Amino acid sequence: MEKIDLLIAARWVIPITPPHCVLENYAVLVHKSRILRVLPLAEAQQQYRPKQSIELKDHVLMPGLVNAHAHTPMNLFRGLADDLNLMDWLHHHIWPAEKALINAQSVTIGTRLAIAEMLRGGITCFNDNYFFHDTIAKVAAEEGIRACVGMVIMSVPTEWAKEEAGYFQKAIATLEHAQAHPLITWSLAPHAPYTVSNASLRKVKEWADQYQLPIHMHVHETPTEIEQSLKEHGVRPLERLHRLGLLSPRFIGVHMTQLVDDDIHLLQNTQAHVVHCPESNLKLASGIAPIAQLLKKGINVAIGTDGAASNNDLDLWGELRTAALLAKVHAHDPTCLPAHEALAMATLHGAQALGLEKEIGSIEVGKSADLIAIDLSSYLTQPVYHPISHLVYAVNRLQVSDVWIQGKQLLKKGVLTQLETHQLVEAARYWADKAAPFGMRSIYSSRETVS
Amino acid sequence: MEKIDLLIAARWVIPITPPHCVLENYAVLVHKSRILRVLPLAEAQQQYRPKQSIELKDHVLMPGLVNAHAHTPMNLFRGLADDLNLMDWLHHHIWPAEKALINAQSVTIGTRLAIAEMLRGGITCFNDNYFFHDTIAKVAAEEGIRACVGMVIMSVPTEWAKEEAGYFQKAIATLEHAQAHPLITWSLAPHAPYTVSNASLRKVKEWADQYQLPIHMHVHETPTEIEQSLKEHGVRPLERLHRLGLLSPRFIGVHMTQLVDDDIHLLQNTQAHVVHCPESNLKLASGIAPIAQLLKKGINVAIGTDGAASNNDLDLWGELRTAALLAKVHAHDPTCLPAHEALAMATLHGAQALGLEKEIGSIEVGKSADLIAIDLSSYLTQPVYHPISHLVYAVNRLQVSDVWIQGKQLLKKGVLTQLETHQLVEAARYWADKAAPFGMRSIYSSRETVS
Repeated sequence: MEKIDLLIAARWVIPITPPHCVLENYAVLVHKSRILRVLPLAEAQQQYRPKQSIELKDHVLMPGLVNAHAHTPMNLFRGLADDLNLMDWLHHHIWPAEKALINAQSVTIGTRLAIAEMLRGGITCFNDNYFFHDTIAKVAAEEGIRACVGMVIMSVPTEWAKEEAGYFQKAIATLEHAQAHPLITWSLAPHAPYTVSNASLRKVKEWADQYQLPIHMHVHETPTEIEQSLKEHGVRPLERLHRLGLLSPRFIGVHMTQLVDDDIHLLQNTQAHVVHCPESNLKLASGIAPIAQLLKKGINVAIGTDGAASNNDLDLWGELRTAALLAKVHAHDPTCLPAHEALAMATLHGAQALGLEKEIGSIEVGKSADLIAIDLSSYLTQPVYHPISHLVYAVNRLQVSDVWIQGKQLLKKGVLTQLETHQLVEAARYWADKAAPFGMRSIYSSRETVS
Repeated sequence: MEKIDLLIAARWVIPITPPHCVLENYAVLVHKSRILRVLPLAEAQQQYRPKQSIELKDHVLMPGLVNAHAHTPMNLFRGLADDLNLMDWLHHHIWPAEKALINAQSVTIGTRLAIAEMLRGGITCFNDNYFFHDTIAKVAAEEGIRACVGMVIMSVPTEWAKEEAGYFQKAIATLEHAQAHPLITWSLAPHAPYTVSNASLRKVKEWADQYQLPIHMHVHETPTEIEQSLKEHGVRPLERLHRLGLLSPRFIGVHMTQLVDDDIHLLQNTQAHVVHCPESNLKLASGIAPIAQLLKKGINVAIGTDGAASNNDLDLWGELRTAALLAKVHAHDPTCLPAHEALAMATLHGAQALGLEKEIGSIEVGKSADLIAIDLSSYLTQPVYHPISHLVYAVNRLQVSDVWIQGKQLLKKGVLTQLETHQLVEAARYWADKAAPFGMRSIYSSRETVS
């Protein structure tokens, strides 16, 4: 009998690779934080002696979800202002609130609040994009969640940096001094085509090559962005980025609601990745990314929640469902983006976008044991004909029961094992009190109107 | 000190009427199953002596949700088959499964499963549409939930009736013999324009007038339906229904994804109601109902989940959020369908569609005490700037903590007080085993492919 660290058995194991695969009554063996074997439970029990053994009788066991676009500290601004035009929302609410609040302390609390939310809902890796990247990375490492942390570059002055040069200084300080950490990788995050100069984009390209970093950028989010680029640069944003050399298998373009055939060919030819944020795109009325067309061309599509200020949660199951539903109506085809493909978008395709597909995204031997379990026993998901269908079309994120990252359990029967949420909520309220004056005006009625 | 049955106090009371209203630290007083007063908690404690008093410190208290379109027994078919063309789905999966399974016993279990799910998520009233209407009404009355039960009329033979005359017979038997029940009302439910003859529609109109019943019908769901009507009747379905006299304030048209200006004028002039089922419309690629236009014309829009076989849950919070997001992108306007208006769709506007607006849909003195509480204390919905925003854009239905119908508590701290779900799940599995052969083919891989 071979000694191993951990055996997790489940009624259904869904490895993502190969597609459609559902293994009944299988065990995933974990040793030294990696997946050692995937085999029938009965065989596993005969051959291995695990230090810890967990049997999940009504559960799916699958790889953790990858949230491919987030602004984690913005959890502090959840619901601050909604139902507004983008420029009204930014100029009168979000930017003033950021100016007043954002510093290393508030970013610590906002990031931790987001990590608590993501772990609770089965997200084991996130691709971030916000100021104070060093703080975000520190909190992620402390809490044991995997993160690709973007270093923002833009021409808009903030509390973090006053001009593009300042943003580059912050980035180079990290690139030259940050210690390697098994859970943390970095990306360069030029904000958007309309907030970064050609000179800076060239520098981003140079650094991305030199340090072998992904480039994480908002691109083709709204019709206005396209019009502005045509006016100022004479070409659409993607074409401009291509001419500057940015498009490659290390380019992660987020949103992409405005795509014509030429844009899609560019993405296809350069093997750039697309991150779909359906709920944010709907809420801000940006548009609908043509997922069916992208998939048909073999372009890798991942999925992200965007920030909680514009969404207003970090629920990747919700995004996944919205993506699957929206793709169908947009393509006039109910067979488009079927459940197993949507599930791959939220796992393996996310890993591919971040260049982490050798490490995470599927249950395969040798990969990190970043795993989640979902309890389907509730009357809310009965009966069960096809567990993959339920995961996409019926599961509630609170049915996620257990989460492991590198084999370490961070959620156990729905409770976070490490993060103390009571204290965290108190701290979040402290910052929220400071942000509240920048929110929408509250309308409270007197009792005379109703009693 | 006046004696009363029940005092429920909450951090936030949202009465729906007037719009935007949020009352802080208020109490709702309930006596003899009705709302007696709405006043500040401190005043209530000075003036009243309640038999039972409940204080909800981190909660919203609001009227129960109205699910304006359901096929409750279809909960048995949740996830049986997905990602298919409508006709493939119906002909090869749903109809054969219905033929093999649907009877009074299975309808009892499916309905009860749906009621458990709806109560858990804060739905206190549903508008149903399925065979065995007498059984559905009986189960709803037993479980203490409010229902408007549709009596199906159509030309398609089923186990319930073989031809239109048979369906009418079932309806007249109920209309003449059913005893009045405070929770149950009835509607006539001609299935859809393409499955009911002109003669039968005339009879539906006649009976609806005679018995003062709403007419609950799927209308303008898909482009095919419109084409077919133009070919067979020379007019669009709504125009045909109008010529037959069906459109009136007692007409409830469900789906309505295909609307031109003339259709919208007809709805406006006749004061007919629209039920929006956004997730079903997306999943089946039917289309997107033009909610912004309907609201602009003052047409009453309610919201429904549709059946669990095509959705795949009865989560009205999810529908509500999808509705609010989708309306924005469809109208190219992020200010469209703001949170408070979406919340009214799921409550008061649903009540109006069912002709129950004097009884339910808002917290107003004299209405039935059909109330729900939602716990916002979780780190998943912190901080709280505007509770109405959270209800629409961030709340998870499992945050519904308490439900009362007619002042009787049916959900307490997230647990159903009356419905025994363990037994129910067992019974559902019994029927699911019979339905499984009509589902999609399952694809299971052998371990060799993954280990």
